[in-house]
Amino acid sequence: MATATEADAMRRAIALAARALGATSPNPVVGCVILSPEGTPLGEGRHRRAGGPHAEVEALAAASAAGHDVRGGTAVVTLEPCNHTGRTGPCAQALIDAGIARVVYAVADPTDTATGGAATLAAAGVTTEGGLLADEAAAGNAAWLTSVRLGRPFVLWKYAATLDGRSAAADGTSRWITSAASRADVHRLRAEADAVVVGSGTLRADDPHLAVRGHDGAVQPLRVVVDTHASVRPGARVLDDAAPTLIATGKDADTGHLPGVDVVRLPRTRTGLDIDALLAELYGRGVRSVLLEGGPALAGSFLAAGAVDRVVGYLAPALLGAGPAALGDAGVGTIAAALRLEVTDVARLGPDLRITAVPTASATAPEEN
Amino acid sequence: MATATEADAMRRAIALAARALGATSPNPVVGCVILSPEGTPLGEGRHRRAGGPHAEVEALAAASAAGHDVRGGTAVVTLEPCNHTGRTGPCAQALIDAGIARVVYAVADPTDTATGGAATLAAAGVTTEGGLLADEAAAGNAAWLTSVRLGRPFVLWKYAATLDGRSAAADGTSRWITSAASRADVHRLRAEADAVVVGSGTLRADDPHLAVRGHDGAVQPLRVVVDTHASVRPGARVLDDAAPTLIATGKDADTGHLPGVDVVRLPRTRTGLDIDALLAELYGRGVRSVLLEGGPALAGSFLAAGAVDRVVGYLAPALLGAGPAALGDAGVGTIAAALRLEVTDVARLGPDLRITAVPTASATAPEEN
Repeated sequence: MATATEADAMRRAIALAARALGATSPNPVVGCVILSPEGTPLGEGRHRRAGGPHAEVEALAAASAAGHDVRGGTAVVTLEPCNHTGRTGPCAQALIDAGIARVVYAVADPTDTATGGAATLAAAGVTTEGGLLADEAAAGNAAWLTSVRLGRPFVLWKYAATLDGRSAAADGTSRWITSAASRADVHRLRAEADAVVVGSGTLRADDPHLAVRGHDGAVQPLRVVVDTHASVRPGARVLDDAAPTLIATGKDADTGHLPGVDVVRLPRTRTGLDIDALLAELYGRGVRSVLLEGGPALAGSFLAAGAVDRVVGYLAPALLGAGPAALGDAGVGTIAAALRLEVTDVARLGPDLRITAVPTASATAPEEN
Repeated sequence: MATATEADAMRRAIALAARALGATSPNPVVGCVILSPEGTPLGEGRHRRAGGPHAEVEALAAASAAGHDVRGGTAVVTLEPCNHTGRTGPCAQALIDAGIARVVYAVADPTDTATGGAATLAAAGVTTEGGLLADEAAAGNAAWLTSVRLGRPFVLWKYAATLDGRSAAADGTSRWITSAASRADVHRLRAEADAVVVGSGTLRADDPHLAVRGHDGAVQPLRVVVDTHASVRPGARVLDDAAPTLIATGKDADTGHLPGVDVVRLPRTRTGLDIDALLAELYGRGVRSVLLEGGPALAGSFLAAGAVDRVVGYLAPALLGAGPAALGDAGVGTIAAALRLEVTDVARLGPDLRITAVPTASATAPEEN
């Protein structure tokens, strides 16, 4: 049984891991705390970026730099220590070499390449215990774990709307429906995502920039425009050098006006581009989490494809009675086919409400109609 | 200064008053607790229905029936005791006659006819103190107080929608968007209202019954159909005898197919009936609180007329992407003219969210456009 001190250390490790969201893909976020045999914290670390030291190695180095002897100590880590040599050496071996006597982890590593760390540790005589605060740690790694399970990036659809579901007024104006607090929260979502995706309609209507502001040191997400006909114009803000940008077009689109722009050509469907092909392309580029920012038609395509894993709605306490809806055709024709969700969180952001929901287990992609 | 015992008694009086919501119009809801000089509760009462005993009289009678001597005691009452002889005698005099030495009330009576009770009491040597838990008591009497201030019924607009603001699917199906818990809560709103108002579109689409179910002893609200062209058909469920019904039509409507039905003819506007005239008619019939149940066009007309005092939205965690919106044209053409509200409560009802909001102080009725 893990001790209360180890549970405290795990909470700290989960918090450390969360700081690196958006910076580690294709790797997970991981946090680690090294405890002395008496339970005193000796060092802590997190995996900061792909190619950088793993959390365990950073924590061991921090303890060493502070002059602590970690031999006989315990490593508390959010994910089962890896067992393979990638860009860095295996963490299981690093812990063994350092003389760690016990390893407590939250979530077992689900990947084929990295799993087996616990067995390696046990074979070397290290006590191992998995499952401590597993739910909390898994929630903190939801995007990466989902991407491992599904073989495609985790997709969070974010929208902003009035209480009556409008994302703009009848004349198309939408600045600002939601409060500054809500808009700042969206920048946090961008900072935590590997890619931000919008459709060409949103690009035309809003000329959005899509880069992260207000989060010093954040890794800028890949800006992705789903632009079947390559309608983006040179000079669009999304094409500046604040962050990388990818334009996804149909196979037959003319992109001659976009020299030097990163373009990927994808199969077309009746309503636009093939969403599965887009996600496969992004996955191949190391993207593990996508923030889908709209507009309504693109969000409908993602939902119809069963490719939304979480919904975050910023609801402003306002009414418009006219204007574009937050969500367009998602292939739902009748109430029995409604996409049902479960609300997992409700928060107040200034005057607004932020509602977080996930598809219910029984939800399936509806038939196109 | 009121004592802690008196504050406890006031909370009880507020709770007693709330039980009578929907049954007392055109009177307010009022609760009363009689305390002995030592602070022991001797009797309690509430105003149960117009024409019935006032709360103070019921509380005095309860104390008397229990064999208690109330002389020298304190009356704790949610509203300033009335000073006029209506269908019942003035409560101020009843308290004086009973030998009550002190009266603590929450909210001053704002009406021309009933005000002055505190002065009458003071003139008779009774100590009076107003303002105890005034905000809580006023919130419990919000509908009546608003109707006194505005000279029209208080209007609560209730809607049910998905997270993307749809009240029905593309094929018109809407049963059920929200959960049984939400629908039961709507029956509570009906029970607390004097009238329930719907438009003819809702009548055609849903053939609603609009009577209260599940609240034994509730006074059934007046069912009102805003039906400019008198399109309601004989046999509509709303015309049964479960509750009274009023059909509001345009002045020129043919109502020959509705013999025996209570019909009122009102001026027409560009989009329907004159909302102010409708509310004046209802006010004249003693209605002090209206539950506006839709549909979207009628809700838009009420909002455009500045005639919504509270909004209660039942949001189901579901997405439709198509289908009628919860709110139609409310005269808002651009984002700067959005009807801004303030969220006053968020509650979970089964899987759904219930959001309560009120127009912000700066909100004004928009120009028609």
